[in-house]
Amino acid sequence: MSRRSRKRHTRKRLVGKDFFPGSVPGILTVDFESPRPAIRVLAYGPDAWIEEDVSSVGSLPEYLRKWPVTWIQVTGLGDAQILQEIGILFNLHRLALEDVVSNNQRGKFEPYEDHLFLVGHIPKDEEPFETEQLSIFIGKNYVLTFQERSGDGVGVIRERIREKRGRIRNMGADYLGYALLDSMIDHYLPILETLDTRLEELEDEIFERPTDEGRSKIHDLKRELRTLRKAVWPLPDVVEMLMKDDFPSLTETTRVYLRDCHDHIVHITELIEIFEDQASDLMDLYLSSVSARMNDVMKVLTVIATIFIPLTFIAGIYGMNFNTEISSWNMPELDWYWGYPFALGLMVAVAGMLLLFFKRRRWL
Amino acid sequence: MSRRSRKRHTRKRLVGKDFFPGSVPGILTVDFESPRPAIRVLAYGPDAWIEEDVSSVGSLPEYLRKWPVTWIQVTGLGDAQILQEIGILFNLHRLALEDVVSNNQRGKFEPYEDHLFLVGHIPKDEEPFETEQLSIFIGKNYVLTFQERSGDGVGVIRERIREKRGRIRNMGADYLGYALLDSMIDHYLPILETLDTRLEELEDEIFERPTDEGRSKIHDLKRELRTLRKAVWPLPDVVEMLMKDDFPSLTETTRVYLRDCHDHIVHITELIEIFEDQASDLMDLYLSSVSARMNDVMKVLTVIATIFIPLTFIAGIYGMNFNTEISSWNMPELDWYWGYPFALGLMVAVAGMLLLFFKRRRWL
Amino acid sequence: MSRRSRKRHTRKRLVGKDFFPGSVPGILTVDFESPRPAIRVLAYGPDAWIEEDVSSVGSLPEYLRKWPVTWIQVTGLGDAQILQEIGILFNLHRLALEDVVSNNQRGKFEPYEDHLFLVGHIPKDEEPFETEQLSIFIGKNYVLTFQERSGDGVGVIRERIREKRGRIRNMGADYLGYALLDSMIDHYLPILETLDTRLEELEDEIFERPTDEGRSKIHDLKRELRTLRKAVWPLPDVVEMLMKDDFPSLTETTRVYLRDCHDHIVHITELIEIFEDQASDLMDLYLSSVSARMNDVMKVLTVIATIFIPLTFIAGIYGMNFNTEISSWNMPELDWYWGYPFALGLMVAVAGMLLLFFKRRRWL
Amino acid sequence: MSRRSRKRHTRKRLVGKDFFPGSVPGILTVDFESPRPAIRVLAYGPDAWIEEDVSSVGSLPEYLRKWPVTWIQVTGLGDAQILQEIGILFNLHRLALEDVVSNNQRGKFEPYEDHLFLVGHIPKDEEPFETEQLSIFIGKNYVLTFQERSGDGVGVIRERIREKRGRIRNMGADYLGYALLDSMIDHYLPILETLDTRLEELEDEIFERPTDEGRSKIHDLKRELRTLRKAVWPLPDVVEMLMKDDFPSLTETTRVYLRDCHDHIVHITELIEIFEDQASDLMDLYLSSVSARMNDVMKVLTVIATIFIPLTFIAGIYGMNFNTEISSWNMPELDWYWGYPFALGLMVAVAGMLLLFFKRRRWL
Amino acid sequence: MSRRSRKRHTRKRLVGKDFFPGSVPGILTVDFESPRPAIRVLAYGPDAWIEEDVSSVGSLPEYLRKWPVTWIQVTGLGDAQILQEIGILFNLHRLALEDVVSNNQRGKFEPYEDHLFLVGHIPKDEEPFETEQLSIFIGKNYVLTFQERSGDGVGVIRERIREKRGRIRNMGADYLGYALLDSMIDHYLPILETLDTRLEELEDEIFERPTDEGRSKIHDLKRELRTLRKAVWPLPDVVEMLMKDDFPSLTETTRVYLRDCHDHIVHITELIEIFEDQASDLMDLYLSSVSARMNDVMKVLTVIATIFIPLTFIAGIYGMNFNTEISSWNMPELDWYWGYPFALGLMVAVAGMLLLFFKRRRWL
Repeated sequence: MSRRSRKRHTRKRLVGKDFFPGSVPGILTVDFESPRPAIRVLAYGPDAWIEEDVSSVGSLPEYLRKWPVTWIQVTGLGDAQILQEIGILFNLHRLALEDVVSNNQRGKFEPYEDHLFLVGHIPKDEEPFETEQLSIFIGKNYVLTFQERSGDGVGVIRERIREKRGRIRNMGADYLGYALLDSMIDHYLPILETLDTRLEELEDEIFERPTDEGRSKIHDLKRELRTLRKAVWPLPDVVEMLMKDDFPSLTETTRVYLRDCHDHIVHITELIEIFEDQASDLMDLYLSSVSARMNDVMKVLTVIATIFIPLTFIAGIYGMNFNTEISSWNMPELDWYWGYPFALGLMVAVAGMLLLFFKRRRWL
Repeated sequence: MSRRSRKRHTRKRLVGKDFFPGSVPGILTVDFESPRPAIRVLAYGPDAWIEEDVSSVGSLPEYLRKWPVTWIQVTGLGDAQILQEIGILFNLHRLALEDVVSNNQRGKFEPYEDHLFLVGHIPKDEEPFETEQLSIFIGKNYVLTFQERSGDGVGVIRERIREKRGRIRNMGADYLGYALLDSMIDHYLPILETLDTRLEELEDEIFERPTDEGRSKIHDLKRELRTLRKAVWPLPDVVEMLMKDDFPSLTETTRVYLRDCHDHIVHITELIEIFEDQASDLMDLYLSSVSARMNDVMKVLTVIATIFIPLTFIAGIYGMNFNTEISSWNMPELDWYWGYPFALGLMVAVAGMLLLFFKRRRWL
Repeated sequence: MSRRSRKRHTRKRLVGKDFFPGSVPGILTVDFESPRPAIRVLAYGPDAWIEEDVSSVGSLPEYLRKWPVTWIQVTGLGDAQILQEIGILFNLHRLALEDVVSNNQRGKFEPYEDHLFLVGHIPKDEEPFETEQLSIFIGKNYVLTFQERSGDGVGVIRERIREKRGRIRNMGADYLGYALLDSMIDHYLPILETLDTRLEELEDEIFERPTDEGRSKIHDLKRELRTLRKAVWPLPDVVEMLMKDDFPSLTETTRVYLRDCHDHIVHITELIEIFEDQASDLMDLYLSSVSARMNDVMKVLTVIATIFIPLTFIAGIYGMNFNTEISSWNMPELDWYWGYPFALGLMVAVAGMLLLFFKRRRWL
Repeated sequence: MSRRSRKRHTRKRLVGKDFFPGSVPGILTVDFESPRPAIRVLAYGPDAWIEEDVSSVGSLPEYLRKWPVTWIQVTGLGDAQILQEIGILFNLHRLALEDVVSNNQRGKFEPYEDHLFLVGHIPKDEEPFETEQLSIFIGKNYVLTFQERSGDGVGVIRERIREKRGRIRNMGADYLGYALLDSMIDHYLPILETLDTRLEELEDEIFERPTDEGRSKIHDLKRELRTLRKAVWPLPDVVEMLMKDDFPSLTETTRVYLRDCHDHIVHITELIEIFEDQASDLMDLYLSSVSARMNDVMKVLTVIATIFIPLTFIAGIYGMNFNTEISSWNMPELDWYWGYPFALGLMVAVAGMLLLFFKRRRWL
Repeated sequence: MSRRSRKRHTRKRLVGKDFFPGSVPGILTVDFESPRPAIRVLAYGPDAWIEEDVSSVGSLPEYLRKWPVTWIQVTGLGDAQILQEIGILFNLHRLALEDVVSNNQRGKFEPYEDHLFLVGHIPKDEEPFETEQLSIFIGKNYVLTFQERSGDGVGVIRERIREKRGRIRNMGADYLGYALLDSMIDHYLPILETLDTRLEELEDEIFERPTDEGRSKIHDLKRELRTLRKAVWPLPDVVEMLMKDDFPSLTETTRVYLRDCHDHIVHITELIEIFEDQASDLMDLYLSSVSARMNDVMKVLTVIATIFIPLTFIAGIYGMNFNTEISSWNMPELDWYWGYPFALGLMVAVAGMLLLFFKRRRWL
C-alpha cells in the first residue's frame, strides 16, 4: 500500500458532509462526484420473483401492492431529486435521508413510526481495506437499501432469493433486512482472515529478521485495525437495538436469527481487540528483536576491540625510540636475544587472559 | 506555535473565577478585561424577521411580546450590572449567571423551571486551537446566548434565519436552541480535519526522517488533543440530558434532531480517541525510527572500527624497534625479501575474514 | 512448539464456517474432514444404568421413554444427514444445530422453549494448548452433547455415573448438564497449573540469564494466554445466564451448584488476568535484565578501552622519529638515562589516575 | 522538598488509628500528640451574630435554643473526654466520632437520623502539599465541624457570616454546611493552578535541557498528583449522596447550590486526570529528549573516531620498520621523493570519502 | 525472600483441590497434610463467658442451648469425618463445607436459609506475605469459624470477649461475625504499612544508586502486591452483599458497623491500587536512573576516547619512517629545530579545540 493512496482514502472517510458548520440539517447536499442513483427492484413471494431496473420512482408503488416483499436497491447517491422523491414515497425522515447521502455516517439504528433505519459499513473487496456505507430501511413489506457504488456486498442475498436457497422466500421483509445485515457482518470475516494471516506471517518474518520494512508493516496493520474497529464498533449496539425494538412487523423468528447475528458481530469485535493486542505484542517483539540483534553486534565487536587495544599498546611500547645505547635502562628488551618472541608471548598472554575473563563473565 | 503563547492560553483557561476560595457563590465577579456586553436581538416568525442592536435591557420585553421567537445575543461579559438586569428580566438563577460569567465552566446542562441552561465551548478560528464559552438559555419563546467575544460561531444560524434556509423560521425557540448547539458541535469538524491532515503529514515526515522537530510536533499535537478532549468530553452528556428533559416547549420534532446531534458529538469523541491512539502510535513510530537510524549508524561505524583495529595492531607489531641484528629471533620479517608484501597480505587476509564473518552473521 | 504447527491451529480456530459471506443461515454446511457422527447413549436412574453405542437415530426415543435421564453423546460432526435427524427428533433450532457444526463458535447460552443450549470449549490434553468445542443441549429428561473428537473431557462424568459417585444418579438431567459444564471448567485448571509453573520457571531462567530463547518463550506464553482468555471469556456470562434462566426443569438444588461453578469460572478468569499481568512483567524483567547485562558489558569494556587509549598515545609520542641530533628540543627524553623508566612511570601514573577517577564516580 | 520530610508525612497519612487490628470499633483512641480541643461558637441569624470561645460543652445548648443557626467549630482532637461529651450532646454515633478522631479517614458521607455526617480533606497552605481532615455534622439548626489544627480553610466562611456577604445569613444550617463543603473544594484550586504552572515550567525546562533534576521533579509531581487524587477521589460521591439525601432540613435551594458544587468537584477530578496524563507525557518527553541528546553526542563522537581510525592505520603502516635496503618490495614508498606528501594525500582522500559517505547517509 | 520458597507457596495457593477435573462436587477431599481439626468453644453472654476445648462434636449442642452466643472455632482441616459431623449438626451445605476444606477458595459470601457463609483470607504474620483462609458461618446464636492453622488472626476478638471490651458481650452472633470480618480486614493494615515503608526505602535507594538488587526488589514488590490484590479484591463485594442481605438475625446496629467495615476495605483496595501505581513508577524510575547513569559513563568515556584518537593519529604521523634524506618533502618536520615542540603544540591545540567544541555543545 503506497503512502499516497492511504492518505487519500483516510481523508475521504473522516465524516459526512452534513457534518460541517453551515450545513442546514435536513437539507440534502449530495456529492456530485457520486454516480446518479439507479433503482433496481427485486420483488418476491414464496412462489415467484421478479427482478427489474426501474427508471422512475413512480413505478415503485405497483410492486409494493403486488408482491409480498419488495426490495428496492438504490445504487449511487448523486442526485438529490430522485432521493427526495423516494423519501416522500416511503415517508423517510429528512435526517435519515441526509444520513444516507452523507456516506460516512457512523453505524446507527433509528426506529421511525413506519420503518426501521439502519446504517452500517460493508467492506469493499479491494486492497487496502476500505468500506462502503450501506443504509437499510425496513418497512412492513419492503426493504430499501442505499449504496454509493454497486458492490457485491448484497449480491449473495439476491442469489439466495432467486434460487430459493434457505427460507428467505417464505419470510417477510424483516427477514430480508436481517439477511442483509447478516451478510454485511459476514463480509468482515475474509478481512479478519487476511489480517490473521498477515499477523502470522509478520510474526515469522520478524522472528527471523527484524527489518525496517517489518516495522512499517506493523504500523500499517495497526492503522488498518483502527479503521476496522471504527467501522465495526457501533454494529453490536445497532443489532442489539434492532433486536429489542418493538416494531410490529419484526417477527419472533427473525429475532432469534438476530440473536445469532449479534453473537457474530460480538465475536468479530472481540477478534479485532485480540488482533490489536497481537499487533502491539508484535511491535514489542520487533523492538526487542532489534535491540537483541544490536546487542549481539555490539558485544562481539566491542570484545574484539577490547582485546586488541592492550595488544596495540604493547606494540606501541616497543615502537618507542628511546636510545638504548645511552643506558641499560632504556628498553633493554629491544636488545634481548629473545626480545621479539617475548613481546609476542606477552601479547598472547594478555589476549588469553582477557578472553578467559570474558568467558567467565559469560560475555561470549 | 511558540512556547510562550501556549503557556499563556493554558493558564487562562484552567478554571473560572467563581471557583476560587473566598468567592461567594451566586455573587457575580466579572472579569474587567472582558468587553462590555453588547445586546443584539434577532426576532423572527415564519413570515418576517427583525435584527437590531439594543442598548438597554428594558427594551427587550417588547420583542418577546411581538415575535414568535426572539434570540437575544449578548457579547461581552465585562459589566455585572447589565448581566444582572438580564438575569432579573429572564428570572435566571444566580449560579447560572455566575457560570455564564466565569467563562471557563465545564460544559453542562441544567434544567430550571422556566428555561433550560446549556454551557458549551465553540472553537475559535485562530491557531493554535482555542475555545470560547457559549452559554445558551432556552425559554418558551426566546433563546438567550452569552459569549465573551463575537466569534462567527453562530453567524451561520443568523444567516439561515435571515434567508429562511431550512425549516428554522417555522419552528420554535427549542429548534433555535438545537440549531445553536448543532452549529457549535459542527465547528469542531474543521479542527478534526486539520488534525487529521497534520497527523498524516507528521507520519510521512517521521517515516522519512525522524527529527527533533517532529518529536516536538507530536508532543504539541497530543497536547492539543488533550485540550480538545477536555472541551468536547461533557457534550454528549449535555445533549443526552437535553434530549431526555421533559421541558414542555421542547417538541418531539426537535428531539429527533437532537438524536442526530447526539450521534455527531459521539462520533467526534470517538474520532478524538482514535486520534489520540494515532498520536501515541506516532510517538512509538518516532522512537523506533530514531533507534533504527541510530542502530544503522552505530553498526556501520563499529564495523569499520572493528576491521581497522586488528590491522593497526599488525602495523604496530612491525613498528617495534627490536634489534634484528642481535638474533634471528628478533623480527626476522623485517629483513625478509617479501616482508612488506607479507605484512600487507596478512592485513588484507584479516580484514577479509572479518568481513566474511560479519556478512555471515548478517551484520552488513 | 514449532512455528509451523502454531500457525496451522490458529488459522483453523478463527471462526466457524457458517460465518462466511454467502453461507445461508440455518443450512448445515458440515466439514467433511470431520469424522462421521457416532452416537453413544448412557441412560441411568438411581438404581441402574445402561451404556450403548447406537447406530440409528430412530432407536433413541426408547431410551428417553424408559430411563429417568438419558445422555446422548454425539462424537464427530461430519454428516449433515444424521445431525439433522437428531435435530428433528429433539426439535433443535436450525441456528443451534449450525452452531454445533461450526465448531469454533464463541461460548454462548441460548434458551429455547423445551431445552437449553450451551456452547463451551474444553481444552485438549495435548500440547500446545488447543480447545475443542462442546455443545450441550439440556432437555427435560435428556442431555445431548456434541463434540468433534472423543476427548476425555467428559469421561470423568461417565465414570461418576457408572460408579454412582456423588449424587449424580439421584438427580435429573439438569444436574448432568451442570456436571458437564463443571467438568469443562475444571479442565482449565491443569492448564493454569502448567502455565503457573512455566511462568515461575521462566522467571527464574530470565533472572539467571536473559536469553533470546527466554524472550521467545514469553512471547509464546502471552499468545497462549490470549487464546485461553478468548476461550474462557464468554463462560462466566454463560453460567450466569443459565443460573438465572427460569427453565422449569432446572431445580433449585442445581442452581446452588451452578453458583459454585460460577465462582470457579470467575476465579479462572481472574487468574488468567493475573497471569497476563505476570507475563507482561516478565517481558519488562527480560528487557531490563538484558539492558542491565549489556550495560555491565559495555561499562567494563569501555573502561578498559579508555585506560589504554591515553597509554597508547604516550607510547605513540615516543615512537615519533624527530631528529634528536638537530636540537636538544627534539625529544630529549629519548636520550635521557632514565627515559624508558620515566615513560613507563608516566603510563602507570595516568592509568592509576583514571582508575581512581572511575572508582570515585562508582563506575567500577 | 527534602526526601526525609516527604517520607514522614506519607507515613502519617496512610490510615487512621481505628484501623489497626486489635482496636475496638466504637472506642475512641485519640492521638495524644494532637492539641486539646478548643470550641468556638459562631451563632447567627439574619440580623445579628455572636462569636465566642466556649470552655465547657455544657454551655452549648443555650446557643442552639437562642439562635437560628449555630456553628460549633472544634479544633484539636487530643482529648477523648470532651469529644465524647459533644458526642452525647449531639447524639453522634460512636463510629462517626471515631472517624472524626482517626484523622485520616477516607472522604465519606453518612446519613444519620437527626444529622448528616461528612468527611473531607482540606489542603493546607504549606508546601509540600498536605491535607487536613475536616469533619462536618449538619443538624437541623447547627453545624458541627472538627479539625485537628486551626487552618484558614474555613476562615472565609466565618468572614462571610460576619460581614453578611452573599445570602448565608438568611439561610439555614444546611446552607452553612454547603458553604463549608464548597469552600473546602475551592481550596483545591490554587493547588491545581500551582501544579499547572509547575507542569508548564517543567515542560519548558525539559525541552531546553533534560537534566537529572528535571526527572526527579517529574517524579515528585506524579507523586503529589497521586496524593491529590487520593484526597479528591471520594468527594464527587460524597456531594452526590448529600444532594440525593432526603434529610428533611435540606432545602431545595441548597440542593441547587450543591449541584454547582458537584460540577466543580467533577471538574477538579477531570483536571487531575489530565494533569496525570500530562505528567506521563512529560516523562516520555524527558526520556526521548535524553536519548535524542545522547544519540547526538554518540553520533558526532563516533564519526570522529571512525574517520581517524583508518588514518591512524595508514600512519601505522608507514611506521613499520621493514628493511628497505634488502629488497625494493619492502616499503619502497619510504624512499620515494614524494613519499610523505603521498601518504598525507592518501589520508586526506580516505577522510574525504568517509565524510562524503556519512553526508550521503545523512549521518552528519 | 529466596526464589525457592516463593515458588513453593505460589504453587500451593493457586486453587483449591475441589477444583480439579474428576473431583466430585460436594464430596470432601481433605488435605491429609493439614492438621487434625481441634474444636475450641467460647460461649458468652453479657455477664459471663466460658472457654473450653471440645473433643467431640456431640457436646456442642449443649453450649448452643445454654449461652446467648457460642463461637465454635475449628482449627485444622485434616479429617473429613469430624468436619462432616459438624456439617450435619449445623446443617451446612456440602458445597460450603467443600469450600471450607479447599483452603484456597476465592473470597465469597453465600446466604443459606439458616446461616450466612463467608470466606476471606487473613494475612499471616510471617514474611513473605502469605494468607490463610478464614471461613465464617454466622447462625442465629452461633458463629462457626474454620482455619487451617491457629493464627493469631482472631485472638484479639477472643480477648475482647474475655475482658468485655467494647460492646461485644452485649451483642448477638451477628456482631461477633462482624467483629471477625473487621479484625480480618484490619490485619491487612500492618502489611500495607510495611509495603509503604518498603516502597519509600526502595525509592530512596534507587534514587541514590540504581542496582540490580533494587530492580529485583521492585519485581518482588509488584508480585506481592498482585498476591495481595488477589486476596483483597473479592472482599468489598463480600461485605456489601452481607450488608444488604435480609438475614433475620442481622440487626440494624450491626449493619451500621458493617458500613464502616466496608469503608475500610474499600480504602485498602484503593491503597493497593495506589501502591501498584507507585511500584510501576518506581520501575520507570529505576530504568531511567540506570540509563541516566549509563549515559553519564558513556559520555565521559567517549569524550576521553575522542580527544585522544586525533592526538594518537598525530603521534602516528611522526612515527612514520619516510626517508628524510631523499627529499625535503619527506617529513621535514622531523629535522626542524622546534619539530618536537611543534608536534606537542599541535596536539595541545587539537585537544583544546575538541574540548571547546564539547563545552559549547554542553556535552561536558
